[in-house]
Amino acid sequence: MSAIDVVIMAAGKGTRMKSQRPKVLHRLAGRPLLGHVLDSAAALRARSAVVITGHGAAEVEAFCADWTGAAGRKSTELQLRPVRQEPQLGTGHAVQQAVPMLPDDGLTLILNGDVPLVRTETMQRLIALCGDDQIALLTVDTGRDAGAYGRIVRGAAEPDGDVPVRAIVEAKDATPDQRAITEWYSGVMAAPTRLLKRYLALLTDDNAQQEFYLTDVVKHAVAGGTPVLALKIDDEAEVAGVNSPVQLAELEREVQRRTAQRLMEAGVRLLDPARFDVRGDLQCGQDVEIDVGCIFEGTVTLADNVRIGAHCVIANARVEAGAVIHPFTHIDGGKDGAVVGPGALVGPFARLRPGAQLGAEVHIGNFVEVKNSTLAAGAKANHLAYLGDATVGERVNYGAGSITANYDGANKHRTVLEADVHVGSNCVLVAPVTIGAGGTVGGGSTITKSTPPGALSVARGKQVSIANWARPQKKR
Amino acid sequence: MSAIDVVIMAAGKGTRMKSQRPKVLHRLAGRPLLGHVLDSAAALRARSAVVITGHGAAEVEAFCADWTGAAGRKSTELQLRPVRQEPQLGTGHAVQQAVPMLPDDGLTLILNGDVPLVRTETMQRLIALCGDDQIALLTVDTGRDAGAYGRIVRGAAEPDGDVPVRAIVEAKDATPDQRAITEWYSGVMAAPTRLLKRYLALLTDDNAQQEFYLTDVVKHAVAGGTPVLALKIDDEAEVAGVNSPVQLAELEREVQRRTAQRLMEAGVRLLDPARFDVRGDLQCGQDVEIDVGCIFEGTVTLADNVRIGAHCVIANARVEAGAVIHPFTHIDGGKDGAVVGPGALVGPFARLRPGAQLGAEVHIGNFVEVKNSTLAAGAKANHLAYLGDATVGERVNYGAGSITANYDGANKHRTVLEADVHVGSNCVLVAPVTIGAGGTVGGGSTITKSTPPGALSVARGKQVSIANWARPQKKR
Amino acid sequence: MSAIDVVIMAAGKGTRMKSQRPKVLHRLAGRPLLGHVLDSAAALRARSAVVITGHGAAEVEAFCADWTGAAGRKSTELQLRPVRQEPQLGTGHAVQQAVPMLPDDGLTLILNGDVPLVRTETMQRLIALCGDDQIALLTVDTGRDAGAYGRIVRGAAEPDGDVPVRAIVEAKDATPDQRAITEWYSGVMAAPTRLLKRYLALLTDDNAQQEFYLTDVVKHAVAGGTPVLALKIDDEAEVAGVNSPVQLAELEREVQRRTAQRLMEAGVRLLDPARFDVRGDLQCGQDVEIDVGCIFEGTVTLADNVRIGAHCVIANARVEAGAVIHPFTHIDGGKDGAVVGPGALVGPFARLRPGAQLGAEVHIGNFVEVKNSTLAAGAKANHLAYLGDATVGERVNYGAGSITANYDGANKHRTVLEADVHVGSNCVLVAPVTIGAGGTVGGGSTITKSTPPGALSVARGKQVSIANWARPQKKR
Repeated sequence: MSAIDVVIMAAGKGTRMKSQRPKVLHRLAGRPLLGHVLDSAAALRARSAVVITGHGAAEVEAFCADWTGAAGRKSTELQLRPVRQEPQLGTGHAVQQAVPMLPDDGLTLILNGDVPLVRTETMQRLIALCGDDQIALLTVDTGRDAGAYGRIVRGAAEPDGDVPVRAIVEAKDATPDQRAITEWYSGVMAAPTRLLKRYLALLTDDNAQQEFYLTDVVKHAVAGGTPVLALKIDDEAEVAGVNSPVQLAELEREVQRRTAQRLMEAGVRLLDPARFDVRGDLQCGQDVEIDVGCIFEGTVTLADNVRIGAHCVIANARVEAGAVIHPFTHIDGGKDGAVVGPGALVGPFARLRPGAQLGAEVHIGNFVEVKNSTLAAGAKANHLAYLGDATVGERVNYGAGSITANYDGANKHRTVLEADVHVGSNCVLVAPVTIGAGGTVGGGSTITKSTPPGALSVARGKQVSIANWARPQKKR
Repeated sequence: MSAIDVVIMAAGKGTRMKSQRPKVLHRLAGRPLLGHVLDSAAALRARSAVVITGHGAAEVEAFCADWTGAAGRKSTELQLRPVRQEPQLGTGHAVQQAVPMLPDDGLTLILNGDVPLVRTETMQRLIALCGDDQIALLTVDTGRDAGAYGRIVRGAAEPDGDVPVRAIVEAKDATPDQRAITEWYSGVMAAPTRLLKRYLALLTDDNAQQEFYLTDVVKHAVAGGTPVLALKIDDEAEVAGVNSPVQLAELEREVQRRTAQRLMEAGVRLLDPARFDVRGDLQCGQDVEIDVGCIFEGTVTLADNVRIGAHCVIANARVEAGAVIHPFTHIDGGKDGAVVGPGALVGPFARLRPGAQLGAEVHIGNFVEVKNSTLAAGAKANHLAYLGDATVGERVNYGAGSITANYDGANKHRTVLEADVHVGSNCVLVAPVTIGAGGTVGGGSTITKSTPPGALSVARGKQVSIANWARPQKKR
Repeated sequence: MSAIDVVIMAAGKGTRMKSQRPKVLHRLAGRPLLGHVLDSAAALRARSAVVITGHGAAEVEAFCADWTGAAGRKSTELQLRPVRQEPQLGTGHAVQQAVPMLPDDGLTLILNGDVPLVRTETMQRLIALCGDDQIALLTVDTGRDAGAYGRIVRGAAEPDGDVPVRAIVEAKDATPDQRAITEWYSGVMAAPTRLLKRYLALLTDDNAQQEFYLTDVVKHAVAGGTPVLALKIDDEAEVAGVNSPVQLAELEREVQRRTAQRLMEAGVRLLDPARFDVRGDLQCGQDVEIDVGCIFEGTVTLADNVRIGAHCVIANARVEAGAVIHPFTHIDGGKDGAVVGPGALVGPFARLRPGAQLGAEVHIGNFVEVKNSTLAAGAKANHLAYLGDATVGERVNYGAGSITANYDGANKHRTVLEADVHVGSNCVLVAPVTIGAGGTVGGGSTITKSTPPGALSVARGKQVSIANWARPQKKR
């Protein structure tokens, strides 16, 4: 089969988005629309993708330069080449800009940067349909009125069963009979590059809007004896474009519904699939249960028997087998990632930040924040506490209200709590500092010097009482 | 055009609400049903509104006395006059109570206190329809069965195209042909006041329920030679009444759907319009993005490029351009308001209370509460802290676990942290107290006296260690 | 009427659940599917329930042994007898296993452990229908295609109006005419036990799958002259089975919708019935209002005029009249229960744990955790605090950041704050300790010894200042 070169239309302004952001960079399921299209092209093992830019070209080009693919890994196969369309004289003109970058030996697949959900499998079928000497259009027929879309006018059936396309007629130019056609053009086309170039060269702007229409390629192909075939699908969402925040929200829900369905079919139990959002890649083991209102971002792995409570936000994290995340927990591992060890209990109202590494059976309770800290098996910080830049040993008990003072206003320092240390309530551990194994820190102590193993360390004032003390009175 | 006097039916008991609260005071989108109706009347620039009270009259009258209009500003134009209907002898009898307060030169618009969504524009069209010598009814026709509603029986078309109403026939009194009519009466009527009075005076309670029906006005008008016209709409929600918690919940969702749609059409990006609640007035700039599960109450302004994370509750606040509110943030500015400055970062798990005024680039992190405090540009309180009645200078760093002790048990006092102050972890600042510019407070200190600029202030016990300390053992 | 013995089919594997857990133990509205069925049987006042186990038999039997009924009370009437089906040779074979445990004088009702929503009233009607000498089937007819279900082929109407069933025909064995039948068999059957036994004994596995089909009982009954009648319902959800996580999620939503509807009809005001989950028993007084995203688990009682804010999780708790629970509050009373007193204010971001007992007008504010503690009327803990194993007197004010150090690493001890005590900010109260009535604890104090009434107690270091202190510089 010929090598595939993809052309992606990404020059549009998206006026109805009412946004400063180029339309193709608006996010669906956490990724820019254009990213979805590029991921599909990469999955197709296309040779190159020419991205036609225009409105917001610099931003779109910057996105292309940084693009790393769905799994966050730099795609090494797909060669990405943005090209600017200036001025913008129509869809045919847009593709003409790509012509110099499309080798004659290839096959060109034309996609739209604001149509994010075309499946790779559908693209493959379209490519198979066009072969070496035909043009293939992706069309939709739901049996309902085709609205403002271009109608597909077909000819008589061929002996081989194909019913070739005669023309694409714009809704506003259609006769009543043509308007009644329910099959419409999706904007996706595949063609052998040499044929595409031939017919692109024949386009004119001799029409009301003085634009070069890509759809006119069909007319010229038919006239030139090149068969035009249509691959008809009935799933409108697959070719739905995004032109407004309303459409973006509708497509977001559709994507989330499909993700939820796919996960449930794999055995994940969702308490309410309509209140579940995945913006990235969520991998689940067996017997995973996710309560209502949870959001997953970036790359998240939930191992067997993990339970996620209601209203959690979890990003870039790995949750090991049997761990339980209670409601209202916020985990964001960022670039460093976060790990919740097997059998650990986290939350409610807990926050794990980048570099939080919880070992087996660790407990992190309410109003506790953990950042860039490693907690060994069995360590506990159950109430109102901060662990930042800390190394916490096995079975350490970190008291309510205790804080690692890891930042001296200029630099971050490390706190080390060796195995079996007990830190009392409302302590401050001024880093760098080490509490030796088995040591105890008395409640209310501010510890500035490291302490030996097994010691009780206290730093607090002597308790004094003033009898019959009169409290302040309410001022008038 | 004649001056408009509105009559609002608000005497009903609402038995199916199963509530002690008068029906018209139940809340929709955060405001009592009656408030919605009054706001529409005010938007219509009506001269007066006569509110017919009955069940729970005292509460309804108290609401009227306090009513300040949608934007919280006292409406100076609409004169509100409650009048009690006692005993309650039907809808016609209710309007009869208003008669003494309706000047003959005006036009009367009859609304229902439990039908909150009639649009001002629809009211205007109805008023225009009745003119000086006709009666106009607001009717609904969805093409579906009209259920228990009163059918609109129309006569032959007039030469001018109007098809006058002959009668309103109650569903239970309707012939099979009449029952098949899909146009029904909404309860909203407009009439020149002198005509309305004439036909109100003719009402009798000579019927099964021994009540004076307002709908009988139609019969008398037709008999008296006054044309009765109907303004037909097809949006059922616009005239939907609230008779039960189920209907209230349905209408709540409908209102929220419409608000979401309107905001999205203006460019706001909602991750899920079905999980979005506005109970008051939400103004948004360009490129505002709002994640799932957020609730906005009172008057909230979100400037350009503001991002609101999932599951936030925000009331009576102004969020400046580019600020980011992370998930699980609770802001309620109350009467004093709250301000989040440009580029500020707030949350997750942050709470801003009345009088919280955050400057540019301020950071408020997890488990931090701010009340009646001003934070200048670049100030940070990132972890588990309380700032109450504080004035915080530029670039101040307020340590984890630190507290302003602003309340001596009787009075509130102010804490002043001048520019560039660093407060360590788990400090207590006993107000009134001032930390001079550039000063540092050591972690774990309780500060009771003001400190000079540039000083390091510490108030803590000396650290001592007891070697080989045996911790308590588990008792049997 | 004859005594009722229930047979519950609970041997299935549930391959499509893709779970290690036996299918009938998957949870719907917080309870295992089998638990719902057992509760219905108990409500029916059945004499015994024979549970046919197979896949995961040990787990199912363990569940049966622990089963205590819907309200958490051990049902003393329903005798539960699991019996294993090994090997599993079909539905008829399953019921045959129960035969030895079914007395001839009784009536047998066959239910499915994965069909959780059959109403007790429907079961009663089915039982009434079969009487002493007939077999009764529960069937469904929604007027739509019956899909893969077994069709109900009926005969001619009897003089008494009954239209007896001739056969149940599997979809794949049906003629085109039979396939068009929209009435299908739900799997629920009632029969006098002596008749059921007679026809069960005639079953053979002489079919394609070599299984003993329960549905063949119909064939034998008809042949044997026993009338087979059908009770037809049109509510598909009532007999919906759970075979996959998708179906489980659908049924979960259906259950929640019904619960929401029922509560609203009783007067409860739900801001969004689609975002409301009850997993247990929720009792509400008058004028209760529940905001979006709330979850109720176990046994929860909300008294008159209680308001629950958005995104709360409340389990095993009693909330007294007029109390207000602000958003993001997590209450779990566990086995000890939790009580929120009349007029109390809790949250936002509060957590009440087992044994939290709040008196009248108590205030628990943000980032406060209460466990196994009693707070008398008017006590307040408004900010970032922990109260564990504490007895708190009337009007106590517990300062921000204060902690009861209730755990010495081995044992838990009690803190007593007598009436009118004021505890300052960031204090540690090292239990066991008592602060005498009216006493004051200065901010930042660690209190290790009990204090007399009326005293001011302080334990803190002396404040010292070092002028012109140079803070650490950023290291390169």
